[in-house]
Amino acid sequence: MVIIVRPGADKDTTEGVISKVREMGFTPHPIYGVINTVIAVIGERTQEAMETLEAMPGVDRVVPILRPYKLAGREVKPEPTLVSLRDGTQFGGQAVVVIAGPCAVESREQFLETAAYVKDAGARVLRGFLYKARTSPHDFQGLHEEGLEILVEARERLGMPIITEVMDPRDMEKLDPLVDIWQIGTRNMQNYTLLGEVGQGEKPVLMKRGMSATIDDLLKAAEYVLVGGNQQVILCERGIRTFETQTRNTLDISAVPVLKRFSHLPVVVDPSHASGHDWMVPALAKAAIAAGADGLLVETHRNPAEAKVDGPQSLTPDAFRELMAELPAFATAAGRSM
Amino acid sequence: MVIIVRPGADKDTTEGVISKVREMGFTPHPIYGVINTVIAVIGERTQEAMETLEAMPGVDRVVPILRPYKLAGREVKPEPTLVSLRDGTQFGGQAVVVIAGPCAVESREQFLETAAYVKDAGARVLRGFLYKARTSPHDFQGLHEEGLEILVEARERLGMPIITEVMDPRDMEKLDPLVDIWQIGTRNMQNYTLLGEVGQGEKPVLMKRGMSATIDDLLKAAEYVLVGGNQQVILCERGIRTFETQTRNTLDISAVPVLKRFSHLPVVVDPSHASGHDWMVPALAKAAIAAGADGLLVETHRNPAEAKVDGPQSLTPDAFRELMAELPAFATAAGRSM
Amino acid sequence: MVIIVRPGADKDTTEGVISKVREMGFTPHPIYGVINTVIAVIGERTQEAMETLEAMPGVDRVVPILRPYKLAGREVKPEPTLVSLRDGTQFGGQAVVVIAGPCAVESREQFLETAAYVKDAGARVLRGFLYKARTSPHDFQGLHEEGLEILVEARERLGMPIITEVMDPRDMEKLDPLVDIWQIGTRNMQNYTLLGEVGQGEKPVLMKRGMSATIDDLLKAAEYVLVGGNQQVILCERGIRTFETQTRNTLDISAVPVLKRFSHLPVVVDPSHASGHDWMVPALAKAAIAAGADGLLVETHRNPAEAKVDGPQSLTPDAFRELMAELPAFATAAGRSM
Amino acid sequence: MVIIVRPGADKDTTEGVISKVREMGFTPHPIYGVINTVIAVIGERTQEAMETLEAMPGVDRVVPILRPYKLAGREVKPEPTLVSLRDGTQFGGQAVVVIAGPCAVESREQFLETAAYVKDAGARVLRGFLYKARTSPHDFQGLHEEGLEILVEARERLGMPIITEVMDPRDMEKLDPLVDIWQIGTRNMQNYTLLGEVGQGEKPVLMKRGMSATIDDLLKAAEYVLVGGNQQVILCERGIRTFETQTRNTLDISAVPVLKRFSHLPVVVDPSHASGHDWMVPALAKAAIAAGADGLLVETHRNPAEAKVDGPQSLTPDAFRELMAELPAFATAAGRSM
Repeated sequence: MVIIVRPGADKDTTEGVISKVREMGFTPHPIYGVINTVIAVIGERTQEAMETLEAMPGVDRVVPILRPYKLAGREVKPEPTLVSLRDGTQFGGQAVVVIAGPCAVESREQFLETAAYVKDAGARVLRGFLYKARTSPHDFQGLHEEGLEILVEARERLGMPIITEVMDPRDMEKLDPLVDIWQIGTRNMQNYTLLGEVGQGEKPVLMKRGMSATIDDLLKAAEYVLVGGNQQVILCERGIRTFETQTRNTLDISAVPVLKRFSHLPVVVDPSHASGHDWMVPALAKAAIAAGADGLLVETHRNPAEAKVDGPQSLTPDAFRELMAELPAFATAAGRSM
Repeated sequence: MVIIVRPGADKDTTEGVISKVREMGFTPHPIYGVINTVIAVIGERTQEAMETLEAMPGVDRVVPILRPYKLAGREVKPEPTLVSLRDGTQFGGQAVVVIAGPCAVESREQFLETAAYVKDAGARVLRGFLYKARTSPHDFQGLHEEGLEILVEARERLGMPIITEVMDPRDMEKLDPLVDIWQIGTRNMQNYTLLGEVGQGEKPVLMKRGMSATIDDLLKAAEYVLVGGNQQVILCERGIRTFETQTRNTLDISAVPVLKRFSHLPVVVDPSHASGHDWMVPALAKAAIAAGADGLLVETHRNPAEAKVDGPQSLTPDAFRELMAELPAFATAAGRSM
Repeated sequence: MVIIVRPGADKDTTEGVISKVREMGFTPHPIYGVINTVIAVIGERTQEAMETLEAMPGVDRVVPILRPYKLAGREVKPEPTLVSLRDGTQFGGQAVVVIAGPCAVESREQFLETAAYVKDAGARVLRGFLYKARTSPHDFQGLHEEGLEILVEARERLGMPIITEVMDPRDMEKLDPLVDIWQIGTRNMQNYTLLGEVGQGEKPVLMKRGMSATIDDLLKAAEYVLVGGNQQVILCERGIRTFETQTRNTLDISAVPVLKRFSHLPVVVDPSHASGHDWMVPALAKAAIAAGADGLLVETHRNPAEAKVDGPQSLTPDAFRELMAELPAFATAAGRSM
Repeated sequence: MVIIVRPGADKDTTEGVISKVREMGFTPHPIYGVINTVIAVIGERTQEAMETLEAMPGVDRVVPILRPYKLAGREVKPEPTLVSLRDGTQFGGQAVVVIAGPCAVESREQFLETAAYVKDAGARVLRGFLYKARTSPHDFQGLHEEGLEILVEARERLGMPIITEVMDPRDMEKLDPLVDIWQIGTRNMQNYTLLGEVGQGEKPVLMKRGMSATIDDLLKAAEYVLVGGNQQVILCERGIRTFETQTRNTLDISAVPVLKRFSHLPVVVDPSHASGHDWMVPALAKAAIAAGADGLLVETHRNPAEAKVDGPQSLTPDAFRELMAELPAFATAAGRSM
């Protein structure tokens, strides 16, 4: 970190800061300028240490130098992490992997029918959500327990790995046998209780970026899982909140090259939640692959106008099949397979 | 809601939308224009109904008319809600109420000393947080169980009501006897599991606005508590995420008049988390009262440079006393007492 | 537009609004609900008409139905606009067009050398900026008059069309003979004086989205040029301001499909200003083509570490050539040529 | 500035950066750490110097230390600047000054009537705008030349100083004799041509913050005026663009204490444009004074429902008088007069 001393601070004040740095176990390197004195500090830094120094009289501000995550960074682990599922599907490898399905499990018939065409079109992982985080308590909240058997049946019949969102650690025990990837939803990216729980296990975790989380925040949240021992983390860009209203969120496509450069974890993109409109999904899905994403998360429904959730952003079966037919050319252009 | 039919849609498509509206149990009022046809729909609306219609072929978009919350709105309950604590302190009444204390309980000595000067200066409720939601797992996470006895002692010795943050529903049972207000933190505003739990009880809940939550989102989150039966909800504006970097967040001062106009719930402001800098806190605290806030949430520490969390935004004891001496003039100007 | 009457407004107030609508020359369609009365109004609407009605007592808010632009929209002109340069280069046609060059003209040698490798690598239009809009007056402001001859020489020697930014209408006369496309910079997107001037002419205009402009704002700004009679407008997405700090701006890739759907004007993307970092440019350039952009605006410098402006985001000659070699595969995947 | 060398850069690369720093005339202070090497550089810095270094191979990023403005900062001029008008009105002194009037001059009758009650209620400066920057070319653009005589008449009759917005430098000559303060509008905050022109003169300039400008950007824009020689600059906070949609913009109330701390220039707040709704204006106006603003800019119209511009945010004469009667208590609480 670099400590910037307030302009005009007297010698004693500056010395006090230098002593404090030493007392905290760091080596201070003061550099005296005409307007500002700065004190460079080399070594491990924590938020706590920076705040302590920033709260001292005479300190203008403290500028971090090291990135605010360790285990998630390329500096500690330069080679890419592969996240592997029981059927051999891998995120972070040569192939671009598509996760698809309806937003929520609504009924046995709906789910099985969707699962069948999704698999047929080339998706490798099936979305099957039993709990829905809705902004209003008056909306459909998911099938909960009722949906469990439907999930079991789809999984057995099709043999596809299943991803589901977990919102309450108390649900994990009963969901565990059915689930191949835990999704941490955008509203729970900083639910540290939940992050701690999935970090204790070995099951892959797909972590969605919070809608107001910076890229650093996402990596710090991933750190909560990694620090628990679970290294199987997939990062997911799904749009951030901005002033633009034509889209539900603004897909931060730059997050793909940034995450790939600074982290070894695989990165997938969710064009459905990012846009909120079915007709934008193909353009964003293609852009994600072109930008270097390791996979996609796409919503599709056998009849979007009857979806209980997210109908407007769900692709019809035909639109989904068309998209799946177009993607391989972009994967090839990007030097990937599908 | 108002359904806007896509320009150029043929008659059959438009008729299909009208039929669907009827089938859903609403009365459609189509209005045919030169460029656009719109279908006004009167009656209850849910997100689900709007999405269903928006997902239909031929629908350009659906514009909501009713506000997306009911129980939290003035339309259902015009008179202001008073949130009352066991010692008679009330939020939402004539008096402006100050909640103060350190960000976290760090040690017995630190907490009791702080509590004493906080009470002495006129604060009515004491912050005492045992769990800290930190963006990095490498930072101080709170005292947890160790702090329980300290809280008990402070509460008994000073007789002040205590507010604490709950992050995991499994902690509620042991905290319940010590706590007068549950805080739902900014990162948990959409943790619906937690909202459901505090909504089942009768204890007051202070709900912080998520850092990317719109005002409507905050009211929809409050709705999750109200729908459970608990009417004792205090709303808290604490800054939103914007592009500005001089402040930790951007205090949305306009949220105060907006929330007071559309909701009957009391509104408090947290100038400490909004700004992130001790020297900004007094200006923002005064502005909050001038704008009509029912209370404040202020961080203070006996020695900010030794705080384990949030030192840079914590007022020293002297600065806190000075602020508390200045606030009554603003409360009086606003027609309130302190 | 739809006028939402304040809940609880009495009959006279509602009648007053209805009369006002009639008086303004529109036909009101009132629909009476239990909580809200709404008045649908069909016909042309202006911001002025909406504000007049919104300012009336008893009106809660006015919701627009028609999109806030006309000439720029597909509703008025469904077929795509082709913007053509004197050498036959076209924006909005089958081919993806690359505009490239240094951020600013710095010296004769620098500019001619850059122009040569830019052309050689396949770019069709050359950036040559004489005036630089810098956020600080202490930074390099461009060569101004001194650079004119350099531009003339490059243009004649290479025969490439040239784009330059105009910031002051008083410069247009002397620049006119040298310039093939006027760029309206991001800071001038709402400089209506300037928009009026370029709208009077026939020369193509590349209009950059303001960094806090919505997509609708960009189209409304284009409307200022179109209304003057000049139909040769190219829209440019170059990143918007958000809370994310890893990038200089956040490239709003969704703007590409949105603009292509709602407007007939060609759309190009500037991955250099959007990201601010050379290493992100290739990923974003490929994503832009995958998303359907009609062209790119890329900064390159023969020696970025000696660039007077924007060095960190300028590609080296080698990096630029590599990118140009990779792009055609993405254009082909998108059904385009290069 | 502090240069952060890329982790893993070899010795030669690091030496190359150090040599470059020396060659640029600065003294490098390298500090070698386990993960990162940083090079602190003391002395003047420009954007250009930082970009040059950031563009070098082996440089991860460059962190600025000095604030990016000089003349606008307290470091160069600690004492507050007083901006004085011909009638003795001063911005930045003990008194809080209210500027008020209609958004635009619409007719002789409208303007004179408004001016009369505005003066009577205690405002010191009159808004009189002849040109309106509207986002759509189809809306009212102001009276232009026609309004000149109305302005002259109002100014002579009432003897109030007048503020008007200038958008085109070519209008300045004819407006000059009638105008006491030039307003630079939010859309022109980075119109450097215009800033250069007003910076050449001696007339006070009220500079509105751009809707996506950071506080630093606003101060850098003010620097453009100051560097021209004109020290009479008033800064104006008028709301920034965020995701919140209940307000037209989000009033960044924290900008008041931040600007007052880092700059010597007076600061006023525009609660009308910030909110977009008349009923929010009083709360925000009071908050601005409580936060330390030196003045306000308030829109009022004799009949908001007939205003050609900004009716919904204009106070009626009664609401304006009521607000003016309430403000002095807040000014007194803040240790100011009115």
